[in-house]
Amino acid sequence: MNDKIRIGIAGYGNLGRGVEMALKRNPDMELVGVFTRRDPSSVNLLDATVPVHAMDEIAAFKESIDVLILCGGSKDDLPVQGPAMAKLFNTIDSFDTHAKIPEYFGAVDQAAKGSKRTAIISVGWDPGMFSLNRLYGEAALPEGETYTFWGKGVSQGHSDALRRVPGVVGAVQYTIPSEKAMDLVRSGSNPKLTTREKHTRECFVVLAEGADSKAVEQAIVTMPDYFSDYDTTVHFISAEELKRDHADMPHGGFVIRGGQTSKDCRQVIEYGLKLDSNPGFTSSVLVAYARAAYRMNRVGQTGAFTVFDVAPALLSSKSPEQLRKELL
Amino acid sequence: MNDKIRIGIAGYGNLGRGVEMALKRNPDMELVGVFTRRDPSSVNLLDATVPVHAMDEIAAFKESIDVLILCGGSKDDLPVQGPAMAKLFNTIDSFDTHAKIPEYFGAVDQAAKGSKRTAIISVGWDPGMFSLNRLYGEAALPEGETYTFWGKGVSQGHSDALRRVPGVVGAVQYTIPSEKAMDLVRSGSNPKLTTREKHTRECFVVLAEGADSKAVEQAIVTMPDYFSDYDTTVHFISAEELKRDHADMPHGGFVIRGGQTSKDCRQVIEYGLKLDSNPGFTSSVLVAYARAAYRMNRVGQTGAFTVFDVAPALLSSKSPEQLRKELL
Repeated sequence: MNDKIRIGIAGYGNLGRGVEMALKRNPDMELVGVFTRRDPSSVNLLDATVPVHAMDEIAAFKESIDVLILCGGSKDDLPVQGPAMAKLFNTIDSFDTHAKIPEYFGAVDQAAKGSKRTAIISVGWDPGMFSLNRLYGEAALPEGETYTFWGKGVSQGHSDALRRVPGVVGAVQYTIPSEKAMDLVRSGSNPKLTTREKHTRECFVVLAEGADSKAVEQAIVTMPDYFSDYDTTVHFISAEELKRDHADMPHGGFVIRGGQTSKDCRQVIEYGLKLDSNPGFTSSVLVAYARAAYRMNRVGQTGAFTVFDVAPALLSSKSPEQLRKELL
Repeated sequence: MNDKIRIGIAGYGNLGRGVEMALKRNPDMELVGVFTRRDPSSVNLLDATVPVHAMDEIAAFKESIDVLILCGGSKDDLPVQGPAMAKLFNTIDSFDTHAKIPEYFGAVDQAAKGSKRTAIISVGWDPGMFSLNRLYGEAALPEGETYTFWGKGVSQGHSDALRRVPGVVGAVQYTIPSEKAMDLVRSGSNPKLTTREKHTRECFVVLAEGADSKAVEQAIVTMPDYFSDYDTTVHFISAEELKRDHADMPHGGFVIRGGQTSKDCRQVIEYGLKLDSNPGFTSSVLVAYARAAYRMNRVGQTGAFTVFDVAPALLSSKSPEQLRKELL
């Protein structure tokens, strides 16, 4: 008899592959299938014994998967997939378009309530572990300020923006938190900081043949929303250098809460992540929340939830007794 | 009509006073009474309009207090008070004798289940916020190591041990984490560290008249359990210096989880606290969990719980919608 939690993966890119790797480190779960919109025979898993199916056959697996982890993108995939899959499965996703979370939550909640399924949305590190630390910090120190810094790390959105500039054939953008600003925040002085003071942006750009480097640089540093509010540095490199030195996806950052519990009494909470692989960490967090979704569904907690609604113990493979004895 | 959460404080020392201060920063709660084993007329609250009662009259307030925050010590007070008060009230405490938590949990759980009350035990920062970070870190990175460092801060237990050495009339002990050890851990290399390598201990001691400083120093640095496993420094100072320079109770520390999500892929999570006042922070956390205990009791979650069992959203005065919009 097999009583492992049966996991499915919908979408097999960086995140899907990360979930496959993370499951190997969680022996109470097993991967029972991967679903793709590509030709299934073209998708090579790390473990070739796991079946790959076409996404449009997924409804047939309704009863044989305990939790489906959605590994699609927030822009085009999840707004449709999230509610659709919550009609069939318990789901986990990493929806990260902050401004659209209330709307997305509502759509998934309605679907999951109708099917009596459990869906935990916006899991990962931001939203996710960073969100938790913003909440815990504010609750522990109601009088204070919370600061979030990102980096040093690759921002996909900003790298994509660079690639859309005429004359650019390849690019990577690093978001870098200002050490000076972080030290001010860590002192507990709760400074007012402008966007420009908190982060700088560093771009590594491969030019198209014959492109004008001055014009490209100017187009980048003046680009509204993405770069104009920051001190931005542009480095021109070769396609070989881009591939050799900038292929990894490191990231991380900090959530810092500075507060007072009495006059002139400064209390500072700092949470930080230093990640060699952004998708590797995100997918590992998704897998921990899959365990929680499975347990919540079994006790009848259905509908949509976020990390705020999940009792920490539900994430651990250890029993409540073990947790109290070993980790409390 | 008043729909604030009505809070009582049992025991008015540093922690009780901290809770009184924290309640002023949480406008959805109000302090309705303080209970003491001293002569109530001898206890001066910050807010003189709040009544002070004798502890042995507390049962009369069973219906007029929503949550009672127990501010006694873990050694003598809580083992008796915890179960006794959970028969009458929803309670929060900061029981921190790690080895006795399973036994204490059992006793409080039995009492609270019988009375249909909700008791959250071992709340604060260690146990408390540090425990949460040990759990979240292990769940997010199941393959890895967790390290807890304490300090720089005053250890009451070690200061008490110093004061019991013959020839000592006053003393404060600071626990200091090793920067070298922390940097190793932060690198993600998951080193094996001995007790001596993780922390050093610094003692500020006032000698009795005529005491032999060499003998006192020797008695301290060789004291088993407390000092013999550490590199310990002893400074002899005057009673005036002790009072002037060492009256505050700063503390803090770090929980660091280093793990791998794939081969050679290092992921490091670091949580740190830098506290001007240890009791000030602990009591502010107690108050946030009082809000959670109140809410859990209203939906019928009775018995004993720890921070592991409390969904983060229950700590916040904000609505779930607000939390998703503002903090996720």
